[in-house]
Amino acid sequence: MKQITLLGATGSIGLQTLDVLRLHPEEFSLHSMAFGRNIEKALPLIKEFEPRLIVVQDEETKKSLAGHVSGTPILTGSGGMIEASVADEVDVVVNAVMGSIGLPATLKAIQAKKLIAIANKETLVTAGHLVMAEAHKHNVELLPVDSEHSAIYQSLNGERKEDIHKLIITASGGSFRDNTREELTGVTVKDALNHPNWSMGAKITIDSASMMNKGLEVIEAHWLFDVPYDQIHVILHRESVIHSMVEYVDGSVMAQLGTPDMKVPIQYALTYPERLNLPITKQLNLEEIATLNFEKMDFERFPCLRMAYEAGRAGGSMTTVLNAANEEAVQLFLEGKISFLDIEKKIEQSLEKHDRIHNPDLSTILSIDEETRKRVRFHLN
Amino acid sequence: MKQITLLGATGSIGLQTLDVLRLHPEEFSLHSMAFGRNIEKALPLIKEFEPRLIVVQDEETKKSLAGHVSGTPILTGSGGMIEASVADEVDVVVNAVMGSIGLPATLKAIQAKKLIAIANKETLVTAGHLVMAEAHKHNVELLPVDSEHSAIYQSLNGERKEDIHKLIITASGGSFRDNTREELTGVTVKDALNHPNWSMGAKITIDSASMMNKGLEVIEAHWLFDVPYDQIHVILHRESVIHSMVEYVDGSVMAQLGTPDMKVPIQYALTYPERLNLPITKQLNLEEIATLNFEKMDFERFPCLRMAYEAGRAGGSMTTVLNAANEEAVQLFLEGKISFLDIEKKIEQSLEKHDRIHNPDLSTILSIDEETRKRVRFHLN
Repeated sequence: MKQITLLGATGSIGLQTLDVLRLHPEEFSLHSMAFGRNIEKALPLIKEFEPRLIVVQDEETKKSLAGHVSGTPILTGSGGMIEASVADEVDVVVNAVMGSIGLPATLKAIQAKKLIAIANKETLVTAGHLVMAEAHKHNVELLPVDSEHSAIYQSLNGERKEDIHKLIITASGGSFRDNTREELTGVTVKDALNHPNWSMGAKITIDSASMMNKGLEVIEAHWLFDVPYDQIHVILHRESVIHSMVEYVDGSVMAQLGTPDMKVPIQYALTYPERLNLPITKQLNLEEIATLNFEKMDFERFPCLRMAYEAGRAGGSMTTVLNAANEEAVQLFLEGKISFLDIEKKIEQSLEKHDRIHNPDLSTILSIDEETRKRVRFHLN
Repeated sequence: MKQITLLGATGSIGLQTLDVLRLHPEEFSLHSMAFGRNIEKALPLIKEFEPRLIVVQDEETKKSLAGHVSGTPILTGSGGMIEASVADEVDVVVNAVMGSIGLPATLKAIQAKKLIAIANKETLVTAGHLVMAEAHKHNVELLPVDSEHSAIYQSLNGERKEDIHKLIITASGGSFRDNTREELTGVTVKDALNHPNWSMGAKITIDSASMMNKGLEVIEAHWLFDVPYDQIHVILHRESVIHSMVEYVDGSVMAQLGTPDMKVPIQYALTYPERLNLPITKQLNLEEIATLNFEKMDFERFPCLRMAYEAGRAGGSMTTVLNAANEEAVQLFLEGKISFLDIEKKIEQSLEKHDRIHNPDLSTILSIDEETRKRVRFHLN
């Protein structure tokens, strides 16, 4: 029986992680759950899974929740997430919080030698060098939950790192793949949230539409698999059936395919190196799908992807800025305060203004993160 | 340095195996080579690779060859192939002979605990139960050289057998994939030898056109991977880019892709579990290919595939009959003595006439094989 700490329990990945736990009560047990402020969503889950520890965002939420749950300790904030992640009984920490707030808990969980199922790409984008250094030091596996990175992880199974020639990350193209840049001027939040293939949270759906999601994935892949940016290739694949690929030195390409369903990579991260039945997922039927299409990625059409490569190649604190500017700009867009095309402008301005710091430590990263967000939010650029 | 015994050196797979050896002189050395009667093709290869032992089909060929090579022992027939396969210094036996004549040498090589690179699917089709029993008994790996089985082998790398849900073998459709059955009446040997994707020997190219090749592959996969016929699925995939797939219990599908080039699976079998550079193979470019197509397999259109499943499910000596009848019928077609559609008739008649023997031993198999060939050749059905 694996004991799970789930950070971000009421988000899209969190809820799907609980779906997986629900399917295999003999395999998994929820030790702790952390969520933000959504008590309404959380309460039935608390009743159902009876975690030993609950973490919420702030004291106010804690007070509101306390009346409804008796006997279960409720902690708050980053300190609470750390406590839930390092508890002795915990085997796996699923980091599915949104944005870079998952970073400190991830680092502490690694130090406590927990297996990390990482659904939070911002953690690696903002501080990949710190996270991977800790993972190597403590000999801890980081199991990706992102469908693309899970596909690469599965395609690397049994292989040698030195035989990798190239990672090939597929991109569906997001909600606006059939729009020209001119047509993007007036798009609404509702338009952007209408992803053609995947059912995901709001932030990642907007990131898909701007192609920043693919950019963050490129940076995440660079850190997770220790592959240079020149050997990470992005290809447009509208059907999201091939979730990503690895090309080897002998010309062989290994790929993982499937129906777009996040429960597959979530469960794989929890069961690796084994697999378990997943009856609720539709089997892939290639005869029915009939055609898979591939197109060259257009870096002019999707400047966010270009900026992500540039920030990744520049290294140091640049990806922290990229990520923080993007998170805050997406939030402003969701709040209706800026337009869709303003997102990329905000990011570009933030990157231009920033003086790169080589090999930043955690406190430097956190302060650059905060500073960047403030500048974006208060139009200080 | 791996010492290789190559059975079938002057055939298509044999020559491509030598291409691979030529690329990596520091990794591989040709210990022995066996070929049939084609001295003209063999002589320059003997000069270039300087094998320690040569095996030819008969005494006549031996006599003709003896004048050209001095100092290298020349053996003949099945006994010679066995001797070349079990020699102490040999690490890998590549079985690339055509038809079921490779069977005795394969069995002896397994008993001598050699790694077997098996390009000869007839060996497993005709006597899969004997070959696999010996392989398990002596704890010997059989590494498939067929592109489809190599793809499955690669897709199984690092996985557990019990997690397999289905094998999905892709079929290009062969030379006549766009013809109706009516249009097959008058096709010539030249038409049949014109395969759209793969450059292969005559027998396998005819087998591709009749879809018997896929049938033999289904039976081969059944034995190699110990998967029931109901869990082996064939799908039409015109581009031959996905070479085959494995679907797991969690809905994940692992696939191996690449440019159609037999050197990739040949080299993989020689280097497994590692990989080596293969500079002469064109890299897969999905952006250029743009579209991959998949269609349901039509068992009415391709009765040879239906018969192969039926013979496989019936088991015992039925697949020996299937294989022998097919080999002989294809030979008659290549000699211009029967029509293309007569191939399937000959096979159907042979299967109908045969009384299945359960769990046949080697001598029974060899005599059924001989008997079936005679009946097909002399129209005794």
